[in-house]
Amino acid sequence: MEYAKPLPNYLAKRYQGWKATSYADNKVWYRHLAEEGQRPRAMVISCCDSRVHVTSIFGADQGEFFIHRNIANLVPPYAPDGDHHGTSAALEFAVTSLKVAHLIVLGHSNCGGVNGCYDMCSGQAPELEKKSSFVGRWMDILRPGYNRVKDMNLDDEAEARRQLEKAAVVISLENLLTFPFVKSAVEGETLSLHGLWHDIGEGGLQNYDPETDMFVDV
Amino acid sequence: MEYAKPLPNYLAKRYQGWKATSYADNKVWYRHLAEEGQRPRAMVISCCDSRVHVTSIFGADQGEFFIHRNIANLVPPYAPDGDHHGTSAALEFAVTSLKVAHLIVLGHSNCGGVNGCYDMCSGQAPELEKKSSFVGRWMDILRPGYNRVKDMNLDDEAEARRQLEKAAVVISLENLLTFPFVKSAVEGETLSLHGLWHDIGEGGLQNYDPETDMFVDV
Amino acid sequence: MEYAKPLPNYLAKRYQGWKATSYADNKVWYRHLAEEGQRPRAMVISCCDSRVHVTSIFGADQGEFFIHRNIANLVPPYAPDGDHHGTSAALEFAVTSLKVAHLIVLGHSNCGGVNGCYDMCSGQAPELEKKSSFVGRWMDILRPGYNRVKDMNLDDEAEARRQLEKAAVVISLENLLTFPFVKSAVEGETLSLHGLWHDIGEGGLQNYDPETDMFVDV
Amino acid sequence: MEYAKPLPNYLAKRYQGWKATSYADNKVWYRHLAEEGQRPRAMVISCCDSRVHVTSIFGADQGEFFIHRNIANLVPPYAPDGDHHGTSAALEFAVTSLKVAHLIVLGHSNCGGVNGCYDMCSGQAPELEKKSSFVGRWMDILRPGYNRVKDMNLDDEAEARRQLEKAAVVISLENLLTFPFVKSAVEGETLSLHGLWHDIGEGGLQNYDPETDMFVDV
Repeated sequence: MEYAKPLPNYLAKRYQGWKATSYADNKVWYRHLAEEGQRPRAMVISCCDSRVHVTSIFGADQGEFFIHRNIANLVPPYAPDGDHHGTSAALEFAVTSLKVAHLIVLGHSNCGGVNGCYDMCSGQAPELEKKSSFVGRWMDILRPGYNRVKDMNLDDEAEARRQLEKAAVVISLENLLTFPFVKSAVEGETLSLHGLWHDIGEGGLQNYDPETDMFVDV
Repeated sequence: MEYAKPLPNYLAKRYQGWKATSYADNKVWYRHLAEEGQRPRAMVISCCDSRVHVTSIFGADQGEFFIHRNIANLVPPYAPDGDHHGTSAALEFAVTSLKVAHLIVLGHSNCGGVNGCYDMCSGQAPELEKKSSFVGRWMDILRPGYNRVKDMNLDDEAEARRQLEKAAVVISLENLLTFPFVKSAVEGETLSLHGLWHDIGEGGLQNYDPETDMFVDV
Repeated sequence: MEYAKPLPNYLAKRYQGWKATSYADNKVWYRHLAEEGQRPRAMVISCCDSRVHVTSIFGADQGEFFIHRNIANLVPPYAPDGDHHGTSAALEFAVTSLKVAHLIVLGHSNCGGVNGCYDMCSGQAPELEKKSSFVGRWMDILRPGYNRVKDMNLDDEAEARRQLEKAAVVISLENLLTFPFVKSAVEGETLSLHGLWHDIGEGGLQNYDPETDMFVDV
Repeated sequence: MEYAKPLPNYLAKRYQGWKATSYADNKVWYRHLAEEGQRPRAMVISCCDSRVHVTSIFGADQGEFFIHRNIANLVPPYAPDGDHHGTSAALEFAVTSLKVAHLIVLGHSNCGGVNGCYDMCSGQAPELEKKSSFVGRWMDILRPGYNRVKDMNLDDEAEARRQLEKAAVVISLENLLTFPFVKSAVEGETLSLHGLWHDIGEGGLQNYDPETDMFVDV
C-alpha cells in the first residue's frame, strides 16, 4: 500500500493531547473495556453525516452504544444471498452476539443522502439512476418512502424532503423486522426498536409514535 | 410500525440536558452547520465497536469528520453490480460529492469482527461459513488477510489476531484503490489515504508506514 | 524597493524542509484549501506577541481560524469615517463575507501593550501620551479599562496590570457590539462571542463568564 | 458583556490536551518566555487568512516571530494624526521597543482581500467604494497597486490578480519606509526588510528581488 500517508501533524498532536488527558484520567475504564469486552446497551443506526454526533446528544461514554453509520441511516431488507452486507452484518452481530436491548434508528435534517433520493425519484438527478451509482443503488432502499411522500401531495418541497427523512426512519424500522433474529427478539421482548429524527440547526429530537404514525418531540 | 417504543426516559433526560447546555451554548455553530451544509475535512472508516470514539481521540467538532462505521472497519472491493453497497455508497458520496481531502481507516484492538474472521478461517467457527451468516459473509472481505497472517507462522495466537486487525486496515486501503474515483483522486493528489490502528486498553495509536509495511506509534 | 533583502538562509532552509515534509505529506489538503477557499469556523483576535500561538493551544489546522493579531488584542469602537481601519476591516470580512460562527478575543499575561497602557495612564510613560506615539494612541482604546482597574483600588500593582489585561478582553467584547453587523449577527444567533485570557508561563486559560464578570479556568 | 459564551467543549478539550503535552513538555521554555520577556528575531506582517500559518512554514517556536496579521498584509503610509492605527502601532512597538532585526511582509495566493481590491478598482464591486465599507477603505491602501497592474495590460485576469497580490507586498515595503523609525533603522543597518509571496496550493515561496523587481523562488 505505497499510497498511505502519515497522519497530519495537527491530528497527531490532538491525539497525544487526548492520551495525556482523557485517556490518562480514565485509564481504568479503558482497560476495563479492553479486558472485559464491550457490553453496549444499544445499537444506533445513524448517518455518516459529520454534523450528527449521537454520543454528544446522549452524553454517551465509551462502551454504551454500538454504532453503525451509513448514508441516510438505512436498513436494507433481509437478503441472505451470500454477498457482503455491511448493515446486516452489524445488525446480526449486535442482536445475536452482543444482545443489545435497544435498536435506535436516528434520522436527521438536511440529509444529503435523502435529498439525493428525492432528486433521483423526482427525475432531477438521472445520473443517480445508473447501475454504477453506489449512492443511487443504496438510496433505492428508500424509494418506497418517496412514493409515500408523493402520495401526501405536499405543496412545499422542503416539507416533502423532511417527510422523506422521517420516512427513512420508518422504512428502516420496517426493514428491521424482516430479519428473523430481530423479529424474534422483539416478539420475545428482549429487544426494543426506536425511531428518532434530529433537527441539526434547532437541536430538536423527535420520537416516532406508532399509534399516530407521527414524530413527536422528546 | 406498531413495534416502535418511546425513547427510554434516561436517554430523553440526557438529550434534554444536552439541549439546555451544549446545544444552547453553541446554537450558533449548529445553525451554521445546518444552513451552510457540511464540509468535512476527512472521511473516517471506523468500527461499530462501542469503545472506539474517533471524535474524542481527535478532539473533533461537529462538522469535521464524515464517519462510516461498519464491522471491523472494512472496505469491500469495487463491485458495481447494482446491489445495495452501504460502504461503497458512503465512499462515493464522501469522495465525489463532499470532496474530502483525507480518507482514514481506523482499526482497533480487541475487535470482535476480526476475531470472528480468525475463528472462521481457522475452523473454530464453522457456523460463520454459512451462506446465511451476514457476519461471516462480511468478514470474507478479510479472508485474504487471514492467509497473510497464517504465512507469518506466529506462535502466539493473540499476536496473530492482532496482526489480523492490522491486516484489516491494510486490505481496506488496498480495496479503496480498486474504486476508480478513489484511485484517480489519489493519483491526482486531491485525496490522501491513511491507515491507523488503535489500542483501546493502552490508549495507543499507530500509523501504517508503507515503506516498512509496519504500524508505528503516532 | 531597493532596500529589500533576500530571506536569511536559515529561514530559507527551514522553509525548504517544511515543503519537503509537512507540505509534501499534506499536499492534498493544501490544494483543497487553495481550490475550495477558506471556510474558517472562527475569527480569533489575538496579540502580536511572539509567545502566543493560538493554533498550537487549540490544535488548529490550516483553515480553521481566521486570525487577526494586533497589539494587545484590541477592538476599537465602530467608527465608519472613511479612514484605514485594519481591525474593523478584518472584522467586517470575517463576519459578513466568511460568516464565521465564533469571535474569540484572546488576551494574555505579560502583555507589553497593556503594560504600556498602564504606564501611560498612571503617568509613568508621558512619551506615550504624545500625538505622534502610535502605540499610545492605539492603547487609548484601553483607557476606559485603566479607569475600571483604578476603581478596584488594588494594592498589588502586578495584580492591577493583570486585571488590565483582562479588561482589554472585556472592553474589546463591548466594542465588538458597537459594530452593527456584529450586533445583528449576535442577536440573530449566527455569531457567538468568547473572551479568553491565557497565562503564558503557567500554560493557563481562563474564560470570561458574564454572569459573574470573572474569568474562570477552562 | 452579557453576550459572551463559554468556549465550545471540543476547544476546551483540545486546550487541556495541549497543556498536558506540549506545555508540560516545554514548561521551562514557557516560564522562561514569561519571566524574561519576548525577544523575537523578526516581525512578520501576514494576512488574517486561515490558510497561512507562518509559524508552520518557518518551523517557528514560541518567541521567534512578532506577528501582526491584517487583511492582505498591508502597511498603510505613515500618518501620525492621533487616531487608532493598529498596524502602525504594531510596527512602532516591534522596531523601537523590541528592536527586531527583520521585518517580513508575507503575501499569499488566493487572497480574498486582494481580490476585493481588484473587484473594487475594476468597477465590479461598487459596494466596496462606500465610505462605510471598512474592507473597501482598508483596501484603498492597495489602490496604487491596482494602477500598476493595470499598466501591465495583462490579458489573463487570474495573472493580474496574482500580480496584485505581489504588488501588495511591494507597496507595503514602500510604505514601511515612510515611517521615520523604520527608515533610520534600515539606513543604520539595524533592521532589514523582506518581501515574500506564498502559494498556498503549491506550497511555494517567492522572495522579492529589488534588482529585477521580480519575485523569485526561495
